Amino acid sequence: MENLLQKYQIVREESQRICAPLEKEDYVVQPIPDVSPPKWHLGHTTWFFETFLLSGRDHYRLFDAQYNYVFNSYYESVGARVIRADRGNLSRPTVDDVYAYRNYVDKQMESSMSVLEADPATSKLVTLGLNHEQQHQELLMTDIKYILGHNPLFPPYELGYKLTANILGSFGGFISIDEGLYKIGYASDGFCFDNEQGQHRVWLDAFSISSQLVTNAEFLAFIKDGGYTDVRHWHAEGWEWVCQEKIKSPLYWYEIDGEWMYYTLAGLRKLDKEEPVCHISFYEASAYASWKGLRLPTEAEWEVAAEKFNWGRRWEWTNSAYLPYPGFQKASGPIGEYNGKFMVNQMVLRGASDVTPAGHSRITYRNFFHPPLRWQYTGIRLAKSIC
Amino acid sequence: MENLLQKYQIVREESQRICAPLEKEDYVVQPIPDVSPPKWHLGHTTWFFETFLLSGRDHYRLFDAQYNYVFNSYYESVGARVIRADRGNLSRPTVDDVYAYRNYVDKQMESSMSVLEADPATSKLVTLGLNHEQQHQELLMTDIKYILGHNPLFPPYELGYKLTANILGSFGGFISIDEGLYKIGYASDGFCFDNEQGQHRVWLDAFSISSQLVTNAEFLAFIKDGGYTDVRHWHAEGWEWVCQEKIKSPLYWYEIDGEWMYYTLAGLRKLDKEEPVCHISFYEASAYASWKGLRLPTEAEWEVAAEKFNWGRRWEWTNSAYLPYPGFQKASGPIGEYNGKFMVNQMVLRGASDVTPAGHSRITYRNFFHPPLRWQYTGIRLAKSIC
Amino acid sequence: MENLLQKYQIVREESQRICAPLEKEDYVVQPIPDVSPPKWHLGHTTWFFETFLLSGRDHYRLFDAQYNYVFNSYYESVGARVIRADRGNLSRPTVDDVYAYRNYVDKQMESSMSVLEADPATSKLVTLGLNHEQQHQELLMTDIKYILGHNPLFPPYELGYKLTANILGSFGGFISIDEGLYKIGYASDGFCFDNEQGQHRVWLDAFSISSQLVTNAEFLAFIKDGGYTDVRHWHAEGWEWVCQEKIKSPLYWYEIDGEWMYYTLAGLRKLDKEEPVCHISFYEASAYASWKGLRLPTEAEWEVAAEKFNWGRRWEWTNSAYLPYPGFQKASGPIGEYNGKFMVNQMVLRGASDVTPAGHSRITYRNFFHPPLRWQYTGIRLAKSIC
Amino acid sequence: MENLLQKYQIVREESQRICAPLEKEDYVVQPIPDVSPPKWHLGHTTWFFETFLLSGRDHYRLFDAQYNYVFNSYYESVGARVIRADRGNLSRPTVDDVYAYRNYVDKQMESSMSVLEADPATSKLVTLGLNHEQQHQELLMTDIKYILGHNPLFPPYELGYKLTANILGSFGGFISIDEGLYKIGYASDGFCFDNEQGQHRVWLDAFSISSQLVTNAEFLAFIKDGGYTDVRHWHAEGWEWVCQEKIKSPLYWYEIDGEWMYYTLAGLRKLDKEEPVCHISFYEASAYASWKGLRLPTEAEWEVAAEKFNWGRRWEWTNSAYLPYPGFQKASGPIGEYNGKFMVNQMVLRGASDVTPAGHSRITYRNFFHPPLRWQYTGIRLAKSIC
Repeated sequence: MENLLQKYQIVREESQRICAPLEKEDYVVQPIPDVSPPKWHLGHTTWFFETFLLSGRDHYRLFDAQYNYVFNSYYESVGARVIRADRGNLSRPTVDDVYAYRNYVDKQMESSMSVLEADPATSKLVTLGLNHEQQHQELLMTDIKYILGHNPLFPPYELGYKLTANILGSFGGFISIDEGLYKIGYASDGFCFDNEQGQHRVWLDAFSISSQLVTNAEFLAFIKDGGYTDVRHWHAEGWEWVCQEKIKSPLYWYEIDGEWMYYTLAGLRKLDKEEPVCHISFYEASAYASWKGLRLPTEAEWEVAAEKFNWGRRWEWTNSAYLPYPGFQKASGPIGEYNGKFMVNQMVLRGASDVTPAGHSRITYRNFFHPPLRWQYTGIRLAKSIC
Repeated sequence: MENLLQKYQIVREESQRICAPLEKEDYVVQPIPDVSPPKWHLGHTTWFFETFLLSGRDHYRLFDAQYNYVFNSYYESVGARVIRADRGNLSRPTVDDVYAYRNYVDKQMESSMSVLEADPATSKLVTLGLNHEQQHQELLMTDIKYILGHNPLFPPYELGYKLTANILGSFGGFISIDEGLYKIGYASDGFCFDNEQGQHRVWLDAFSISSQLVTNAEFLAFIKDGGYTDVRHWHAEGWEWVCQEKIKSPLYWYEIDGEWMYYTLAGLRKLDKEEPVCHISFYEASAYASWKGLRLPTEAEWEVAAEKFNWGRRWEWTNSAYLPYPGFQKASGPIGEYNGKFMVNQMVLRGASDVTPAGHSRITYRNFFHPPLRWQYTGIRLAKSIC
Repeated sequence: MENLLQKYQIVREESQRICAPLEKEDYVVQPIPDVSPPKWHLGHTTWFFETFLLSGRDHYRLFDAQYNYVFNSYYESVGARVIRADRGNLSRPTVDDVYAYRNYVDKQMESSMSVLEADPATSKLVTLGLNHEQQHQELLMTDIKYILGHNPLFPPYELGYKLTANILGSFGGFISIDEGLYKIGYASDGFCFDNEQGQHRVWLDAFSISSQLVTNAEFLAFIKDGGYTDVRHWHAEGWEWVCQEKIKSPLYWYEIDGEWMYYTLAGLRKLDKEEPVCHISFYEASAYASWKGLRLPTEAEWEVAAEKFNWGRRWEWTNSAYLPYPGFQKASGPIGEYNGKFMVNQMVLRGASDVTPAGHSRITYRNFFHPPLRWQYTGIRLAKSIC
Repeated sequence: MENLLQKYQIVREESQRICAPLEKEDYVVQPIPDVSPPKWHLGHTTWFFETFLLSGRDHYRLFDAQYNYVFNSYYESVGARVIRADRGNLSRPTVDDVYAYRNYVDKQMESSMSVLEADPATSKLVTLGLNHEQQHQELLMTDIKYILGHNPLFPPYELGYKLTANILGSFGGFISIDEGLYKIGYASDGFCFDNEQGQHRVWLDAFSISSQLVTNAEFLAFIKDGGYTDVRHWHAEGWEWVCQEKIKSPLYWYEIDGEWMYYTLAGLRKLDKEEPVCHISFYEASAYASWKGLRLPTEAEWEVAAEKFNWGRRWEWTNSAYLPYPGFQKASGPIGEYNGKFMVNQMVLRGASDVTPAGHSRITYRNFFHPPLRWQYTGIRLAKSIC
């Protein structure tokens, strides 16, 4: 097993590997507020280490005092910052500047690592910073896909890009779970985020859950049956969203001359019908389930059942709102802003996706997004109650 | 106990009693989209009976075929309708027209009541219609308060309006509840809404809950301590809301010459410090709880504990999102749109308020609103986990 | 000729005559910010007399000190006011209150009239107030038409409402005007607004101008020829407006079962093809002229030619921006806000319309609106240059 | 004098010289819709030559058929295009792609130039394309200034950037012009835009006009006297703009520790009080004039007087709306969209500015912008009527 320095180097290197195929121009743009420029991700993850681990240490000099204003994401308690929607309006710092910033901070981190590792508080913060960077690696992939996939020239990220890591076997059919008192939440010694901490009991009524994700072929049947225009299957807010945004298919799908195409990281391709459906909102996932006469699982159901099926190709929408577990406490200080303040108006996703860094997720991991968002690798797993 | 006809007459009469002190002009306006014109409430509750009980019956002639367009609220499956924000742009039908509509429908309902009562399906629909009208009676009161309370002349609804019905004694202190498996949800024979149906088990960790609501005096302490400007207590979306809307106190509060005043249905008055705080958003309730080092209860905790304290003066914000109970099923047909389609992005309120019709609420009742809304009689009850 | 008291009584009476057919509810609503509630017009014209002629006089007591806040239109120097878009949110003062206000101010004005008339400054202000009220009489008519014409029930204002006053004969053909130095602007002793004051010379190149307004039949030909979808005829901002607002015909026109209908003050009627086209924006007027290979006249051309044709049924869009005449001076004090501050981004209309009070307009009169507005009785007269 | 090929090479080279100091990232961003990314300007000016001169010629192959979608600005008749506000969301084509596109088109243009020059129609189009590119050179400078000047790091464009070309001597005082019939508009043989064509007579009343532009020192006096908070000097729409946008000084001005600084192309500098005021909206220019008890000149006054004073450092706001001259005709075909469709809601600027390409402007030149815009090098010259 790697020591902390090795882990640090592996994770930091991975962010730069992800960006290697980009042109400089690709690092800069922000087509929608949710999507950040790649250079911002590279700078922000570096700022995290500088701010929470290096800043204030003896002899450490900030790389550039103004970078706090540019690379702070949402830590209100760490000072003013560029508003999110303006990140794509900044041509400076340049890409080269950002890489210089990374190198500067990496050298300082590496030379301080033995000291940081020795103190449990800072060691834990380094690990948090690395898990934080892995979250941004997933966002880097999804944001890059959005940037290139919304360019009228549809440039590929890598012509030979292949989904190889996560091909899953299939169990087939639905898995039944008995009613009972179960435990969910993180209970081991390793790293987890504060929002999954606190193993606790939950009562579950009997239910069954699909061993497989909904496929593109299955979702096409929903489209062909008029699912997008049948109000009965939609939340009121989902229906408003569908009508206003004129949604007629998952994100990145295009019907061209009667053929369904979609944008992939390898470029525009014919839709692969066997793949699990991807890039759908919570509203679409929920409407699909209603159309099938089924429902989405809750996050507790998912966590209890997940040992019995393969997961990891799609973040799976649950019908649970993102709320604190019993006994949840925000950390004191700025790190306390990490998760707790987002616990309203978002839905929980469970699992991991094709672009999640290896080893980053786990069965207790709680991801969360607003119901209409689609640019993550989101999918559908169905469940039903057993009366 | 009253028979269905008597119940019908009592409830229908009550809506008109509520509107008696109004000027005709007060029936017409809609200062914000959430607030409907009183004449719209009077028409819409009538439309409910006409559409779901009279329309299509032998010999029944619609009062006016175009009223479906005007008075349908959100039943997509019953046809097109005036968009919500346009309700206050309609001078016609006039107030007199709406009362004529009520009289017409009431006569038809009354003469058909014995037949309707004999059939369990229609009898149940009449009861639903009456509970629906009681919900609108509460909205009538809150919307009238908004209309008059946002007029620069601050006209009283009734100069002598008194809060008499719901003065509650106090138990004092916090009530402790042991961990255990509890049942929540409606389990009796009487009427309940579909969203509270399905008694089911929930596991609760040990907690304690206040026997009393937070008072205006206590909330003033939060204000004076800078609660509205301390980001640490707020959800990210709550903080954005506070900053953008420049929120500095509960709705209807005005600081005039150093004295806190508030608008009541009896006009502008000096703030009563002993009253439970009212007209606050979920964000404010949650921030207040954080400032006290406590939290809001979940709806399950509330329901389990509520037999041990008095409730009924404020709708109490819980930290539970409005989601379906296990086994929840939408009714088939238009009535299926009643509750289920709103189960996203809203928080649950429990209890009842000063303006809830007598006998309308119950311990399993689930109300729900979007987090920033404040024009209902909302309040705060605190809870804490017992580790 | 009437003395000032008689004029006062005639004009004031006329405003109330216009409102006589209304229901109370019609006085209250404001379907778009441009359209004010009729009771606001009645109150505001009264406020003008109270504020600029009675307030501050010996022994005069304000009817209600808060009415300044409610009925001030745009006089920044006279204090705060309800924002324009909120006028329709005020149920109070009631219609009865407003009529009581009118009676109160009228009595005071009438008993003070001999004194006011004796002083040239106040006499002039009374005349300004009456012309101001006449402007609002026209707005009352157009706003009432909008309120009733946008109600889904299409209630008539008066079933027997007839356009009788302004039937114009026709000269036929185009009228040629030689190049030369002409004088425009008001030069007599009577009343005029500050924006038309200052007779001055303008050079005009030779041009000809139609003796008649464009008719509904002619405008239909433009529609049928695809005028609304041919970008070549539109200003860039007009094109954006057409696309965004999905404009396909003049305001109040509806194509029902292949037949063109329009809303009139007598209710929904079959389109009268011989009538001059009405309720069109500047963009539509200009696009129509382009489609005909002609142009709109400038306001100077219109004023020079207007003695040779009949006018008065439509406010006629010119291709002149609303700008000050040479030597234009704002009056000092609040009355200086009357016209000058609107001299940007608006286009000049000349003439008068079916709903202009008799005797209110004149050949030098300059009306002005923003290019996309259509709820006034606007029309088209074509011109062409003679090379 | 240069031949057309030489002119072509000089102008095309100049665009690239302007961009030489930029980082690649600076070419990409679009902080507000009015400001286009520099690489878009470089591509669009090239597209103009490709589309209107090369495309369709024998043997010419488009560099990339999709570039029409990316680089068309507003020519509706030439096909669909990226909406203006999305230009900054495109990372591709890259900067290198755009330079390759320029080289490709330049080679084709150069090898075809003798043929193009021989035909008066295409020769005229080449000249139009070069004047078009010069307009974009000015926009390049102003857009680059906006991009760098709104970056929180305030990077300079060139540390040693100097305003050297246009230092003007001063005549001092006001220049009087007698009333009379004057001619304005372009009357020579050289190139002019269609909007300035058609020399024609105008009558002017006597007036005088300042020989000098208003300076920063003079404008500071307006600020210090409360000019931005005195409603009497402002158009109604200007006042709304000032309040909503919280405008308190010209664009790029910052008051830091009691000292006025401004962003220049050489970086953030102490305000030079002797410089003509710059980067102000029409509303501010007009309010300043009102505060001085003077007014802005009309464009006809400016053109008649301009031989008697130096101009060329600021585009000077006039009080004339941008409207067609008598006899104005749009060209047929796409080139007809060049100017005419913008003739509404904009005000005329006369003169030239520090960043106007040498020889591009002339005394009859009509520039135009919407009243609130400030990112051009706009200034103020005062006038007054002589009664």
